[in-house]
Parts: sequence; structure tokens; C-alpha cells
Amino acid sequence: MARTPQSVSATPTDGGDLTRLVTRHQPLLERARTALRTREHWSPYPEDPRAYGPEAEAAGEAAFRALLGRPFELGQPGRDGTVGPAPAEGGERSPYGFELGISYPHTDPDTLLPAMAAALPAWRDAGPEVRAAVCAEILHRINARSVEFALAATHTSGHNPVMAFHAGAVHAQDRGLEAVAMALAEQTRLPARARWRKPQGDHVVDIGKTFTPVPLGISLVVANSVFPTWNGYPGLFASLATGNPVLVKPHPAAVLPLALTVRIARETLADTGFSPDLVCLAVERPGEEAARTLAVRPEIRLVDHSGTTAFGAWLVEHARQARVFTSGSAVNTLVVHSTGDYRDMLANLAFSVSLYSGQLCTSPQNLLIPRAGISTDEGHKSFEQVVADLGEALGTLLSDDNDAAAVLGALLGPAVSERVDLAQAGKLGHVAVPSRAVHHPDHPEADIRTPVVVALDAAREADRATLLTEWLGPVCFAVAVDSVDEALALLARTTRECGALSAGLYSTDREVERAMVAVCADVGVMLSVNLMGDWYISQSAVYSDLHATGLNPAGNAVYCDTDFVAGRFRTVGVRRYGGAV
Amino acid sequence: MARTPQSVSATPTDGGDLTRLVTRHQPLLERARTALRTREHWSPYPEDPRAYGPEAEAAGEAAFRALLGRPFELGQPGRDGTVGPAPAEGGERSPYGFELGISYPHTDPDTLLPAMAAALPAWRDAGPEVRAAVCAEILHRINARSVEFALAATHTSGHNPVMAFHAGAVHAQDRGLEAVAMALAEQTRLPARARWRKPQGDHVVDIGKTFTPVPLGISLVVANSVFPTWNGYPGLFASLATGNPVLVKPHPAAVLPLALTVRIARETLADTGFSPDLVCLAVERPGEEAARTLAVRPEIRLVDHSGTTAFGAWLVEHARQARVFTSGSAVNTLVVHSTGDYRDMLANLAFSVSLYSGQLCTSPQNLLIPRAGISTDEGHKSFEQVVADLGEALGTLLSDDNDAAAVLGALLGPAVSERVDLAQAGKLGHVAVPSRAVHHPDHPEADIRTPVVVALDAAREADRATLLTEWLGPVCFAVAVDSVDEALALLARTTRECGALSAGLYSTDREVERAMVAVCADVGVMLSVNLMGDWYISQSAVYSDLHATGLNPAGNAVYCDTDFVAGRFRTVGVRRYGGAV
Repeated sequence: MARTPQSVSATPTDGGDLTRLVTRHQPLLERARTALRTREHWSPYPEDPRAYGPEAEAAGEAAFRALLGRPFELGQPGRDGTVGPAPAEGGERSPYGFELGISYPHTDPDTLLPAMAAALPAWRDAGPEVRAAVCAEILHRINARSVEFALAATHTSGHNPVMAFHAGAVHAQDRGLEAVAMALAEQTRLPARARWRKPQGDHVVDIGKTFTPVPLGISLVVANSVFPTWNGYPGLFASLATGNPVLVKPHPAAVLPLALTVRIARETLADTGFSPDLVCLAVERPGEEAARTLAVRPEIRLVDHSGTTAFGAWLVEHARQARVFTSGSAVNTLVVHSTGDYRDMLANLAFSVSLYSGQLCTSPQNLLIPRAGISTDEGHKSFEQVVADLGEALGTLLSDDNDAAAVLGALLGPAVSERVDLAQAGKLGHVAVPSRAVHHPDHPEADIRTPVVVALDAAREADRATLLTEWLGPVCFAVAVDSVDEALALLARTTRECGALSAGLYSTDREVERAMVAVCADVGVMLSVNLMGDWYISQSAVYSDLHATGLNPAGNAVYCDTDFVAGRFRTVGVRRYGGAV
Repeated sequence: MARTPQSVSATPTDGGDLTRLVTRHQPLLERARTALRTREHWSPYPEDPRAYGPEAEAAGEAAFRALLGRPFELGQPGRDGTVGPAPAEGGERSPYGFELGISYPHTDPDTLLPAMAAALPAWRDAGPEVRAAVCAEILHRINARSVEFALAATHTSGHNPVMAFHAGAVHAQDRGLEAVAMALAEQTRLPARARWRKPQGDHVVDIGKTFTPVPLGISLVVANSVFPTWNGYPGLFASLATGNPVLVKPHPAAVLPLALTVRIARETLADTGFSPDLVCLAVERPGEEAARTLAVRPEIRLVDHSGTTAFGAWLVEHARQARVFTSGSAVNTLVVHSTGDYRDMLANLAFSVSLYSGQLCTSPQNLLIPRAGISTDEGHKSFEQVVADLGEALGTLLSDDNDAAAVLGALLGPAVSERVDLAQAGKLGHVAVPSRAVHHPDHPEADIRTPVVVALDAAREADRATLLTEWLGPVCFAVAVDSVDEALALLARTTRECGALSAGLYSTDREVERAMVAVCADVGVMLSVNLMGDWYISQSAVYSDLHATGLNPAGNAVYCDTDFVAGRFRTVGVRRYGGAV
């Protein structure tokens, strides 16, 4: 399973092979484009690991284990050193409590970038259909190894097994395919050839035209540690599908998922007759801050960043030679006004604030609840009662350690743990629902905690400062507000000042819903209304939901609107007199 | 014809009127979208003034004359002074030799911008179809007054009558409608409502979704003096159609065409029940440099600039709160290698360098010709012979003053005249074809000159410095090159360093053509091959040709690719559990 670079075919395929590849993936890409038009539910990548055959799980685990404790080879040019395997040397440590022991090649950009640039013309000249098919083939090969990818996600980002298989593997693949389909649609919007005939006086001016998509240059993907593939694939595949070579700079804590990705991409490119250097990995030494130096190089014409809003802003400020797409931090607000299904709402809320220990960028942080309480199908509930009942719902969901470990995730590092400690110690406000440590059955060293719910009051200035700060991790706030109007004003302020990727509402009142819809349009954040059952505010359905809006400080990249792909290439026309093309 | 603001209806139309407006313009917009897909020839706006009826010319002239010598009213809020009518006070002077005598209101942005922002929500909520229909109605009303617009273009930008009616009126309207159609297509790419049903275990998750286009904010159009409408309408209509109020900052020398545009837009908006303040004009006092202060205001979220590359770069550097689209300067290269139709080539070249006295941003400046000469259907022609024959073709085209005045244009100002004087004096190189002053039959004061052709040698460093500079106006260079390879290298360097909007080739050699196509793809410039008859390198067919590529320093705005419209709005989704929308 874990193919080494030695198995890469160096023999370019003939044109017939590429034609067959295009034919093979064409229905898939067409189907994806249909889903993107209708926004219906669809995915080619099964969410259930059992769909991958009886051997898949064991084979994936063996493949993952085979990666541990040894050098990871990529076959890239310009190797000038090694990163890892010890954490002090840049090696990764699983949030579940062990060192991966993998070392990676470090490469010299002065060798790597020219090699990537040299690979561009043939890739550009292959055209959008071939590029889309090769990208789909890369994703197909990644998909076949989803168990291995899920384990890589678990032991770098601390995901629980279900989240790792979903967000770490198949949903990331969906985000990649979505970008490929969008890029293909956009690059084929103009006809490759056209005839322009204009009656002029007694004759016809006859001009033959060609329109050729041309990439911008080399694309840099600066990845994060929480969702390196889910946040990394959109930019990687949007750029690659539009003809740009892609250099992936992984987060030092989560190299493996992208190293696997880059290796599979390189193998696929070589197998299909292209230079593997169209996709390269830039692993950094501890303290190297490679993103800062790479992003401002003149060869880099596109940057996709996911990470802190502050570094995204730095990139926009400094990487002026490039188009910069950013996905940053968010403080997400959920307004609890009223409900016709109190128990289901509480269960949904409890799961939403627990999933991956609140480390999703779409996790709700601030639950705004009228201080006078809410009306429900079980009668009026006071603010305190709602918070207590939420605590009870959290208890039901998380009281068993095994169950809890399946919903939560391992905390990503000391910064997250310290935030929980601070909240738990009552430093932020009254602890309405305390956090508890969860013992993982297989990984006793993992730091896993249930969410702490702190009660705040929007009328208090100190509390407002607290809720206007991002508390990534299992920390959420039940915030007493005077009225719906105050809740909406606070949501607007939070979104404008801190950025937001999700907003939520529970209300049976159409007027309140209308007002909330209007505010979310004004400040630019996606709204989820009265979610119940097993669909949650933090989830984003690929091919259907847009991730982010580009309208607030949480970033300017939207997965995947047209703007995300349209500027990654340009079109060069040729006009020939007489109609020849 | 010249309606004053008093005739603007202040009564909002009812919904039925808007429905009828959408129905009326829907076939036009659909037809435009078809042309944009096929890139075939099409336009709804006749190029022949006679198509507008027997009265149109006289009525248009009367309307234009009625504008002269009096205040131009707009009915905008925040008036705090007057610009013009005297040139010293900011009034316009026709390049054909007289003062327009028009004064304009000066407005306070601190009043104007809030009024524009207040107009946004209703315009946003009207939706893309209504906005497109209102924009089409604005263009329809502008089109009906094309004679008046052509005269306004003639007496601000110095166009000849045909160019004024085309580039100053109907082709500018085409560029506007193109942007409206692109914006409509892009805003309706997502369904307004969708249903998402996902089988999950034993049930189906059912989510109703809405997707709403949301504008970014106020859009600023910084217009130029040569083609204020042709270069201004794409940004104006792309922004307005995507929901953004638009503030138009005209060039001080060419206010009238955009003042007329803004007044008609305001009338149309009021007539259709919207705030006229969705479109406003910011006329500046002499020396005010209003673009610098307006472009960096926080309310401004989009800037469209056409003008010098240097000021475009300033805007990109400073207007960081906005998305900035630039259309800058260009140095365009045409390679003359060989031809099968020598006489037609010379006639085409002569017209191309003469049209509007070379003041088009797409005019060819550097004609690269092998020093060993070229092969033609009339046998081998030496470098000197080609240049002499071009001079003869120019003579044939321009020897009659009346004919010459119909092809050339009035020089825009002393800077252009001085460039011609410098070239004519032999300061740039050997004058191969001298310029001559043309006497305009009706406007003896107009400064009209035929092109001067200067012979340069690519082997001389001083000559390279000359040809790597923009010489806007009737100055072109016949440049001796050693080989096709040197010509292509020089074209590449010129395009990369100076920017280019057009490239041309005359060659009967398929290998040379292939090499030229490859270089133009590499450096990003549209190529015209072997143009003959009455279609010229400097022409851009709206709905078919993309203007600019965004790949070289001539600007990042492309009329009209998807990137030009896709980033002017964002989409806000709402998800409702249970499938309701």
C-alpha cells in the first residue's frame, strides 16, 4: 500500500493513455458539476470505511504503521537536509501520545522552484480536460488509501476516528474534487476555438479565434495543523487544475497527511507522463518559518493560507506579488431564542460544542440566550435552566469515556489545554458546566476534555471582551442577553470584529428568523436555523455549502465559489484573419 | 432630449413594473449570454447612426448643444461647491478647440457616501435579475442618446466622428451590457433555493437552503480621458449589477460623458423605484486629486481604475481595503515577418497606426521588421522598402485633410504634441515617415497630426530604451531586428517590462506563427495574425475578444472574464432543518 517513489513510472504515457484517463474521469467530473449546480447531496467517496472492502481497514493500518519510524522519501530535487524524526528536529508527535518517528527531506527552494517552473509549460499545454482528469486520478488514488489518511489525521491533528475518516480523508477529497470541477467549468467557459463573422458593408469580416487558459505561476499552499487536507486540498487542486505547479508547506505538527498527498500526486503525475515536480513539499526545520520566506518569492504567484487571521493578514500585506487566499480564525455565535423541540435542540447543541473538542473553525463558541429565558415545547425555561439542561445533555453524550473519545478529539497542544484550565478555574466567569478529563481506552497519554460551559453576561464589559476573543478548544460561553435585538447586535459586532464561519439560530418566531437572516446577510456569515437530529452547525456539505463568505475577517477564500478558481488562470486569445483557427 | 433631474419620477414603481422590466430585458440578456458563450459576432446597439431614425442626428446635436455653457445638474446630496465652467476652475475644453462652458456640482463625500451606503440594502434585496434589468434599461436609455454621447466623446477625448460613435457610445454600451450579462450569469450560478437530502443511517437529513448574492460595499470608478465610457462602463455596470453602489470619479478633461451616464442612471433608478444615489458622480476641483482620497476611504470596497500604470500601482499599494481592478499603459508590438498580401498588409498597418492618432491603448507602437527584409507576394522587400511603402500607404490614407480627420483624432494635450515634435525632430532616430499637421475643416484650432514613423535598430541600446517606453500618440517605430528569435525576445521583454494589450504578426510561415503563439501565451498578450481588410489589431470585439489578459503590467482587469465580476459580490447561505426555504 505505502508505495515508495521507486515504484513511480518514469515512462511518459502516450496520448492514448491520457485520452482514456479523460474518458474515465469525465462522468465523475460531469456529475460533480451537476451537484455544484443543484447543490444537492452527492459524493463519490463513501463515508463508511466498510465500503472500501473487507481488507481496507487492516491494509490501511499496516500501511500507516509502515510509515512510522522511518524516513519519508519524495524524490524531489534540491534535497539539502533532513527534518525530524525527533520532535526537537521537527518530527511529529501524535496528540494521542507518541512520536511518529518519521523524517522528511528538506529542500532548497533555489533548486526546487526552478524545477517546478520548468514543469509548467507542458502542464499548461495539456489543457483543462487533461489536467482535471489527472487531478481526479490523484484524488482517486488518495481515496483508495483513506484508512491510511485517517490514521495520519488522527495522529497529527488529534481527530477522533470518525472525524479523521471524514474531514481528514473523504470530505477533504470531496473539497479537492469540488475545486477540480469548478476549475474545469471555469476554464472551459470560453470555447477553445470560435469563429467570429461580422457583416461590414458589402462583405463579412471573418476571424478565427482560440482561447487558451494560462496559469499564473507557482502556487504556495500554507497548511494548518487542524485540517491540513480539508483546508489544503481546495487551494492545491484549484491551482493544479488551472495549470499552476503547487508547493505545499505543511504545518510542522501535521506534515504526514500532506506528505502522503504530495507523494501520491507526484506518482500520478509521473505515471501520466508529466513532471512530478508539478507538486512538491516544503518541510521546514524548527523555527525556520519557511512560509514567510517562500510566500514573498517572485516565483510564487498564488498563496493559499489556512491558519491564524494574523498570519493571513501578514501574507496579504507582504506577498504582494501573489494573489493571496486566506482562511483564518473565527468566533461563531449561536442565538437560542425559542424552540419547538427542546430535547432535540439540546442534544444537537451538546454535540456541536463537543465535536473534535471544539477545535473546528466552525464550532459555535458563544451561545446567546435571553436572560429572561426561552419558550419551548416544554414550557418556559429560564436562562439558568437552559444552561443546566445543556450540561445534562453534555453529560448524556459524554459520560462514558469510550463514547466521549469517539466524539471529542485530543487537544492539539498546551495552548488549548491552558485555555480550558483558565475557563475551568473560573477566571472567565461562572463555570456552569465543568470540563472533565476523558481517559482514552487505547491512548492514556492523550489530553482529552469535555467542554467547559462558562456563563457570561453581555451587559458586563469584561464578559464582552471575553466573548469577543477566539477560545479554540472545548470552551464555550452561555451568554445572557437582554433581547433578540441585543443578540443580533452582538452577533454582528462579533462577526465584523473577529470573523465568523458559522452562525446559528433556534427560534420558532418567523420575525426573529427574518431579522437574523438580514443581519447574517449584512455581516456576511452562513446561518443554520433550527438544526436537529444528526446534522450540526459545524458541518459543511461539500458541493452544496459554501465554506466561508469572504465578507468578514475569517478570510477571503470561499470553498468553493467562482472567485476561488477564476483568478488562478488567465486567458490568452489568438485572432486569425480569414477564419482559420 | 437632455432631461433635467426635474423630470425624474420620485414615485417608486410597483412590483408589477419591475416584473415587466425583467420580462422586457430578459431576452436581450439571454442573447448576450449566448454570445459570450459562443464568442460569435453580436450586438444589440447598431453601429450606424442612421439606424437610430431620421431625427436622431439633429436631435442628438441639439441635445449636445443644449448642454454647453450651463450648469449640469445631477440632484446629488452633499453639494458643497461648483467645478468649472472656466478651465481654470476645472471646466472642460474640447480638443477641437473650444471651451464647453459646463459647470458641475462638487459634492462632499462625507454626505455622499453615507447616502450611497443607505441605498444598498434595497438594491441588494432586489436580486440579480431585477438589477440586471435595471442596468439594461440604463444602457437602453444611453443607447437612445448615442449621438449626444458621441459628440460628448468628440469634444472631451478628441475622437473622430466614427470612433466617437463607436468607442465613445455603442461599443462602450456593449462593454456595459457584457458586464451586466456576466454578472447576472455569475450571480445565478447557485440556485436561489435548494433542497439537500442526505441518507444517513435509517433516515434522511433534509435541509432547505437559500443562497443570496451580497455586494461588497461602495465601488469607485476612476475613469480616464481617452475612453471614459468604454473603459468606465465595465466596472460601473459590473459593480452595479452585483449590488454595489457606484461612485464615478471622471478625469477632469472628460467629465461630460460620465456626467450624462450618471444622470441617466440616476433617472432610471428613480423611475424603477430605487434610490438614485446608487450611482453618483465625484467631479473634482483643479488639483484636488480626489481619486487618492476617495480610493482609501473605508466605505470603498471596489476600485476600477483606467489610466497610467503608475497610478494603478499606487491604488493597489494604498487602497488595501478594496479590491482594485487596473487598466494601465501598454507598449504594443507587431512583428512583420512575411506576407502573402503585401498591399493589404500595408494598408491595414497604416490604418492601425493612424486610428485616433495612435492614442488607443491597443495601438501598435513597435513594428519589428527583419533588417534583411521580408518575403512577400511581390517578392523580397528590404527593411527600408517596407518602411517606405508603409509611408506611401499612410500617404494614400491620409493625404486628404478631410479623410485624415475622419481617421485620426485631435491630440489630447501638450504632452502628446511634444512627443510628436520630439520624434519629428529626429531626436529619437531617423525619421522614416514624417508627420504632418492636418487642417480640420470645421475646427481649425484642433491639433491633428499624421503619424511619424521613426526607424530604430534593436541592436542599439539607446533605441531599445526608446522602444521600451510608451509613446502614446501618433509616434511609431520601425525597428530593425536580426531575426525572428530576436523579435520574439524583444516582444517578450517589452510585454513583461512595459505591459501590452495587443500583439501582432504578419507571417506566412507556420513555424514562426507557432513560435509567436507560444511567446504570447508565455508573456500573456492577445495576438492578432495576418489582419487584412477593415479589421485592425487595435479593435476589440465586445462579447468575443477579452480586453487585456491580466498577465502583464498593462493591468489586472480583463473585460470581461469571470474574475472581473466574480469577486464583486459574495454569497451568504441559510440552511433550515426540515427542508423549508
